[in-house]
Amino acid sequence: MSANVDPETGVWTLNEQDVEYVALGAAILGTGGGGNAYLGKLRAWQQLRAGRRIRVISPASLKDDDVVIVVGGIGAPTVGNEKMEAGDEGYRAVRAVEQAIGRKATALGTDEIGGSNAIEPMIAAALADLPMVDADGMGRAFPELQMNTFFIYGVKPAPGALCDEKGNVIVFNEVASATWLEKLARAGTVAMGCTAAFALPPITGKQIKDYGVKHTVSQAWRLGKAVFTARAEKRDPVSEILTHEHGTLLFRGKVVDLKRWTTGGFARGLVEVEGFGDFGAQTLKIEFQNENLIARNGDAVVATVPDLICIVDSETGRPISTEETRYGLRIAVLGLPATPLFRTPEALAVVGPRAFGYDVDYQPLGEYVDPEPVVAKSGRG
Amino acid sequence: MSANVDPETGVWTLNEQDVEYVALGAAILGTGGGGNAYLGKLRAWQQLRAGRRIRVISPASLKDDDVVIVVGGIGAPTVGNEKMEAGDEGYRAVRAVEQAIGRKATALGTDEIGGSNAIEPMIAAALADLPMVDADGMGRAFPELQMNTFFIYGVKPAPGALCDEKGNVIVFNEVASATWLEKLARAGTVAMGCTAAFALPPITGKQIKDYGVKHTVSQAWRLGKAVFTARAEKRDPVSEILTHEHGTLLFRGKVVDLKRWTTGGFARGLVEVEGFGDFGAQTLKIEFQNENLIARNGDAVVATVPDLICIVDSETGRPISTEETRYGLRIAVLGLPATPLFRTPEALAVVGPRAFGYDVDYQPLGEYVDPEPVVAKSGRG
Repeated sequence: MSANVDPETGVWTLNEQDVEYVALGAAILGTGGGGNAYLGKLRAWQQLRAGRRIRVISPASLKDDDVVIVVGGIGAPTVGNEKMEAGDEGYRAVRAVEQAIGRKATALGTDEIGGSNAIEPMIAAALADLPMVDADGMGRAFPELQMNTFFIYGVKPAPGALCDEKGNVIVFNEVASATWLEKLARAGTVAMGCTAAFALPPITGKQIKDYGVKHTVSQAWRLGKAVFTARAEKRDPVSEILTHEHGTLLFRGKVVDLKRWTTGGFARGLVEVEGFGDFGAQTLKIEFQNENLIARNGDAVVATVPDLICIVDSETGRPISTEETRYGLRIAVLGLPATPLFRTPEALAVVGPRAFGYDVDYQPLGEYVDPEPVVAKSGRG
Repeated sequence: MSANVDPETGVWTLNEQDVEYVALGAAILGTGGGGNAYLGKLRAWQQLRAGRRIRVISPASLKDDDVVIVVGGIGAPTVGNEKMEAGDEGYRAVRAVEQAIGRKATALGTDEIGGSNAIEPMIAAALADLPMVDADGMGRAFPELQMNTFFIYGVKPAPGALCDEKGNVIVFNEVASATWLEKLARAGTVAMGCTAAFALPPITGKQIKDYGVKHTVSQAWRLGKAVFTARAEKRDPVSEILTHEHGTLLFRGKVVDLKRWTTGGFARGLVEVEGFGDFGAQTLKIEFQNENLIARNGDAVVATVPDLICIVDSETGRPISTEETRYGLRIAVLGLPATPLFRTPEALAVVGPRAFGYDVDYQPLGEYVDPEPVVAKSGRG
């Protein structure tokens, strides 16, 4: 199945299958976090079944002064799996930012393509009948709001908004920094019951083109489709992911220990994996804060943020989130290269290992290859 | 010294001495909390010395559709004594609410006449060159934002605003209830470092007249002046307070034990007093959450919220706040009657002993007498 792209306008309209592909790809790119993409998928399907549209446009199609509002879920995924949403939180957060700036959004976007935050903007976009931009601010998921390319490269961190299922709407009119936005929004999220929807301050079309990680909705779609196809054709999905994402196989093994706690609005913890096959007699330890942060094989650091440390089922390639991890799972651990936008000194200060408290240098893992857009000039997916 | 009231307009303009009187009276009415009125006084003096005006108007002078914005400090007094303010937090919170509602305030007000929150609106009013209304929403201080007559009797609890000394400004655009406003604002305050300034949603002139506790700035001024005068004239300041406020002497004794902790954005604790004089061989225990909540003489409850439990120095009548209390202080404990607006069933559900977790019935302590306004028709203070 190819993507439904209007040859005239270049607008890509997603159906249920497309959402399924994006959800699977996004869950892999979520490095354990970003919210449960399966639940996100079901909510997006609800929108399609209610007759609403989910449309994706190319960043190249934005005018420089267009207003893009990035929207998503914030909180602990462990809680997000159980606490029901009202469904329009993201939409209402977007409207609150629009009201604060006195302008309407041209399009919506995501700051993290990983996990359900690839899907949340689709839901708000369906409700608002706005398109979503084929780009994000991470090319993955990260636990905190300041950790995206937009803020790192100078997008003003206010006004942002937060909305919960009870109808509470908070607007962060002025914040001292993006880190303060994170701190205040996190405190609000915890008070709201550990999950909420956020909308970030407006990002111009030019800023999306300059600082966005481009074509990551396309990337998630292609990746998800590749895994589905490999499964159908009885090929190894894990190899398929590695090929598709130019990744490195870090480990194969069985989960033998897991520590996990929900604290300060995050799911934090440590997973220990006993190797098998080529990795027999080795032990890999991965620490996470919503997302996987660092992987150590024995004493050797084999991968750190901002590169992607992805845990998938060893046989099926099914992505395994930090809150789903459990004893006995047989997994493959993959290392995927981060966007070059995260490999600069100024970005590493925010998303490198030291920003998370690990006193190690960042060693880039492989070379990033720009994802191929679904929304191309030819209109062919 | 009489008050400086313009005979034409009825506007009362305060000088440093007036602020001193209000600060002392407010500290007594603060029942241990409401913020440190001494620091509030110094900040108000700064405004006067900078040539700005502090003016108070009668609630009767408000038109029904006038917009009053109530402003004050929120947080733990223990922290407020040490963390420096920028000085314009309250003013900026007011401006944020004005922006959210698209209207300018006619006047500012306070929701609690107790402690520094009697003074905080004067500072914002001086900066905005607006008058302050001679009324409040408590006739005392209370630890939480929903605990005022305005919200109890139906003022819409949004939009409110929060501002800190770093320049962070949060607007609570929509809240599910006044209790949710408190919960979200408290979380924001804690994230801001445990103190901030708030502005409440707009209150109409009619609502001030219908639900406000009237002439409480006057009350604080008269009370402060009475204590100063009693000291100068070598009369007993404690008796003076009791006469002036129609109060009951609950206890005289020495502080022999004190537990205090700053938690969840509040100063909480317990003070134990060993009686002397008429109260020899008796022990009084007072529990507080920023403000004094309940007093027990042995097993007998002698006073509870919403009545005022005020601790003052046994000799000088100096009010002693919960964060200043220490071993060895010789104190008098006074019980003052609450406004009738707090003695209704709907109000007691919010500010009665059960609202604070004490399984006792409220037993009113004496009869409330409406304070006499300074701003009278005659213009004489």
